[in-house]
Amino acid sequence: MGTRLVGFRDAEGATLVGALSEDGAAVTALAGLEEFWAEPHRYTALEPTGATLPVDDVELVPPVLPGARVVCIGLNYLKHVAEGSYAVDGVPPYPTLFARWPASLTVGGAEIPVPVDEDGLDWEGEVVAYVGRPLVDATPEEALAAVIGYSTFNDVTARRAQKLTSQWILGKNADRSGPLGPIVPADEVGDLRDGLKVQTRVNGEVVQDGTTDEMVYTVGDTLALISRTFTLQPGDLLATGTPSGVGYSRTPPWLLQPGDVVEVEVDVLGVLRNTVVDGSARTAGSAG
Amino acid sequence: MGTRLVGFRDAEGATLVGALSEDGAAVTALAGLEEFWAEPHRYTALEPTGATLPVDDVELVPPVLPGARVVCIGLNYLKHVAEGSYAVDGVPPYPTLFARWPASLTVGGAEIPVPVDEDGLDWEGEVVAYVGRPLVDATPEEALAAVIGYSTFNDVTARRAQKLTSQWILGKNADRSGPLGPIVPADEVGDLRDGLKVQTRVNGEVVQDGTTDEMVYTVGDTLALISRTFTLQPGDLLATGTPSGVGYSRTPPWLLQPGDVVEVEVDVLGVLRNTVVDGSARTAGSAG
Repeated sequence: MGTRLVGFRDAEGATLVGALSEDGAAVTALAGLEEFWAEPHRYTALEPTGATLPVDDVELVPPVLPGARVVCIGLNYLKHVAEGSYAVDGVPPYPTLFARWPASLTVGGAEIPVPVDEDGLDWEGEVVAYVGRPLVDATPEEALAAVIGYSTFNDVTARRAQKLTSQWILGKNADRSGPLGPIVPADEVGDLRDGLKVQTRVNGEVVQDGTTDEMVYTVGDTLALISRTFTLQPGDLLATGTPSGVGYSRTPPWLLQPGDVVEVEVDVLGVLRNTVVDGSARTAGSAG
Repeated sequence: MGTRLVGFRDAEGATLVGALSEDGAAVTALAGLEEFWAEPHRYTALEPTGATLPVDDVELVPPVLPGARVVCIGLNYLKHVAEGSYAVDGVPPYPTLFARWPASLTVGGAEIPVPVDEDGLDWEGEVVAYVGRPLVDATPEEALAAVIGYSTFNDVTARRAQKLTSQWILGKNADRSGPLGPIVPADEVGDLRDGLKVQTRVNGEVVQDGTTDEMVYTVGDTLALISRTFTLQPGDLLATGTPSGVGYSRTPPWLLQPGDVVEVEVDVLGVLRNTVVDGSARTAGSAG
């Protein structure tokens, strides 16, 4: 197993980025979170030399700046476009971009609460890319070269809230609804167009099974397009969309219920596992 | 003139919240940005006692946490619903919520660049509310009581990017496209339902002239709805939508060009003035 970078809080409450050990039981500090994103190409290539701590003694957190933008592509796999309520519109002529705020992100192992008005939560297994350099009016080649790594991602969705109006973002930002796996450096991942397998399982049953070469819009093309409107900064994320097999468009619909275990596994990037809990886990003290 | 709170960077690069003097020429420090948002009800009621600095010697910045969520209501004034490309759908049954990332925010006086693919930028004068307490499954009354203040806001829009696909967020997050005025504490503002005048002017010509009692969805109702899906945190913002009179739906369309001065004036909250510049102002070093 190669390099896997995670975020964690140390005993003083500082957020650091570190590398997991082979067995995942220990983390070795690499840099502070802001320090890491100031020079991400340098740090992803470095051997970590900081303190090594048992993972059980730290709080794992997303290795994401609070001010990062999490840009997400909807409708980016042909068979997913065909299964949902947007099927009548066909493949969109540009990547359909929606927003997550970093406050909705969490890590593997986190419990994801079902909001009070939802009948459950839907899964969307996918791959997320991390931008490592500022991009203004970039070419697709420049944009792809700026990506420093990728993670497994589950774009867990509150479908009812998503579809209340024409705009999706309410249902895409539920508390702890965006678990991310560790960052794997781009040079260990290669090209998503070569086809990494993306599989989602609910209580062990396979519900999504796609490959990243099915994407309509590539990471380079999409980041280049975005950079013509706003300046991408180191630490910004691009979630690349989900394959077919989501729950709401099934007959009958199938949504995650409290107690369900949802896993997303991506070749090279690894498995991300979360448990769904009921909405009483949403309290002002613990949520967010 | 009452209390007006702004964000600023001091000589050491720390971000503080402070109060403007009567003439706007000086700022007196109240608290660090994180300290302020940890107890916003307390700080908005305090007399500032920190150092007083000439405004010309500091960099004014939005008094917004990097990790805040800027939730925006689209289509919230009836005459604006009727003028745009969503007119055929009528008034939406719920507030249409879209997302800004704080990275798109700026202050009065900032120059707003036109992205390379746009024919200009559109104005959207409005009022933004600041959440001061965590809100989980709140009632509208609880939600309104949690608001600590309001600012004048211009939701400057890259219309072409907004309408590339079904989702608006690309065109709502252009660099420096979200200028905010100072925060005026809620108790000095009163109830938006009593009707504050919201006027937008381009090079002195009035282009929008509405009142906040025309809003379809109130601040309390909308924050309560949001809180049923995700937990609002102190420092989160709600932009309440724009009156009729935007540029793109005019015949012929009218968009802001480099050199144009756009002003939004809201009763009690004050005037926000920005200049539009061409896209060459977007460089990796300065943008964002």
